[in-house]
Amino acid sequence: MIVALAGGVGGAKLADGLAQCVGEDLTVIVNTGDDFEHLGLHISPDLDTVMYTLAGIANPATGWGIAGETWTTLEQIARLGGPDWFKLGDRDLATHILRTQRLRAGERLTDITTSLCRTLGIAARILPMSDDPVRTVVQSGSEQYPFQDYFVRLQCGVPVTALHFEGAAAARPSREVTAALTDTSLTAIILCPSNPYLSIDPILAVPGLRELIRPADVPVVAVSPIIGGAAVKGPAAKIMTELDVKPSVATVAAHYKELADGLMIDTVDAALAPEIEAMGMRVRTAPILMRDAQDRRRLAAECIAFAKECAL
Amino acid sequence: MIVALAGGVGGAKLADGLAQCVGEDLTVIVNTGDDFEHLGLHISPDLDTVMYTLAGIANPATGWGIAGETWTTLEQIARLGGPDWFKLGDRDLATHILRTQRLRAGERLTDITTSLCRTLGIAARILPMSDDPVRTVVQSGSEQYPFQDYFVRLQCGVPVTALHFEGAAAARPSREVTAALTDTSLTAIILCPSNPYLSIDPILAVPGLRELIRPADVPVVAVSPIIGGAAVKGPAAKIMTELDVKPSVATVAAHYKELADGLMIDTVDAALAPEIEAMGMRVRTAPILMRDAQDRRRLAAECIAFAKECAL
Repeated sequence: MIVALAGGVGGAKLADGLAQCVGEDLTVIVNTGDDFEHLGLHISPDLDTVMYTLAGIANPATGWGIAGETWTTLEQIARLGGPDWFKLGDRDLATHILRTQRLRAGERLTDITTSLCRTLGIAARILPMSDDPVRTVVQSGSEQYPFQDYFVRLQCGVPVTALHFEGAAAARPSREVTAALTDTSLTAIILCPSNPYLSIDPILAVPGLRELIRPADVPVVAVSPIIGGAAVKGPAAKIMTELDVKPSVATVAAHYKELADGLMIDTVDAALAPEIEAMGMRVRTAPILMRDAQDRRRLAAECIAFAKECAL
Repeated sequence: MIVALAGGVGGAKLADGLAQCVGEDLTVIVNTGDDFEHLGLHISPDLDTVMYTLAGIANPATGWGIAGETWTTLEQIARLGGPDWFKLGDRDLATHILRTQRLRAGERLTDITTSLCRTLGIAARILPMSDDPVRTVVQSGSEQYPFQDYFVRLQCGVPVTALHFEGAAAARPSREVTAALTDTSLTAIILCPSNPYLSIDPILAVPGLRELIRPADVPVVAVSPIIGGAAVKGPAAKIMTELDVKPSVATVAAHYKELADGLMIDTVDAALAPEIEAMGMRVRTAPILMRDAQDRRRLAAECIAFAKECAL
């Protein structure tokens, strides 16, 4: 059994590689801090990105959404005066409509996700980090923005001075998350190369979750979302600068050092390995950019091997 | 000012003809007994048929839905295990999503409909019969079916023994409906050729509505949905047989005789005029089948002329 913690596109890619390696022995715990209600529909962007990626129907160009998507409903919504800044494709809408209906009927997000995964033919287990609502809020000076406002509507166009995870204090890991992290056959916990601040931190903000990961007699390895001082995708490097830390694998290491035994970094960052090892972490160097399905599988296999090494 | 009472396809066609004749001086009061919640969305089939028809975007082949519609979301909903017996097109879904969101936010169906009509460029006023929920329930022996179950899922495949309009007793006409029916410039009230039992009766079941129509010093004319003993569309003739009355214009006349001054019938039914006149109603004979936009306008003009005649 392997557990991966993941946010959106980068996390989904590694989760897909891990699923290629271990199939149904993979559980992915996914950030729901990005969830929001839009047009009366409950949207779970990261859960959907992981689902669509593992189902093999993700849009390869964007990383999010469904391949070959059409936009008929959204165009009509715009014609009727509704908002179209958040891109909801026609196929994607089916997920949101069904999920919203079932949530309103009182079902747990965990059960709905499991059922959607089954119809999509996904062998791995995909779990929301919690069935309780946690909402990431971006602080920029005296202003606060709901996450999707910051991320999509403002295109990350304001500097981040702090991040809040509203509802986190009252949230609980689901019994499925607890069971996965306490499974006696668990051999590795992998922090996917998702944004540490926006995607992994909200998961770790659920009370009890960090404690389920760390005392586990199981190696924890993280994969850097930073390569050569830049983020592969998204605002990770920009946010680091705004939070007054240097966008580098060393910063990622410092962020995870209490939690992870080792950090996978790209070969271009090999010179920084000693600095990370000085923090008490192991380092493994490999090409970590995932361009295709083979890259995903290869990096996943590296992570599994690295975790074994960390367990020694 | 003209007020028309309408249900779905047949009613929408005459309403379109009336709109061609008098434009913004038309108010259409529409049946909402067919409304239901499906996939978590509030669907108002008759309101939508009237809206799409007056906006010139209705599907000419079916009468309902939007011309050139696509079905991507519904196909994906089916793939995900959701129900697809009620046909929701991609463009149509935009209406349901926006309306549902606004209803949940506490807006009145009347205001939402007015705003949708504005964005669709409709000059006439389209009003739900009430902002309070009324739900048509079909009784078949000891079984009861919500209307859309009967109409769409079962394709009217069970015999109707009675009809109930749940919630009607507690419903009120909106202030806009009351204002339209008490407008001093009102010159005619027209009962469109919709199903008398399924489309017009639910409107008349709203307490106070019948009284707003009848004592008005305004002529009321009905248009028969039956031509030559058959319904132009839908189960009107079938229901008449099931309710033990003969499917004929004379039955329509008997149904409306307390409410309407006159009945428009088709030329093929001219021989039944004396029987209807013996009930105290005026009769006007004309070709009443609406095949195209010109037919709609011509019939609407006939109705307006007939109402003038009834006012003498």
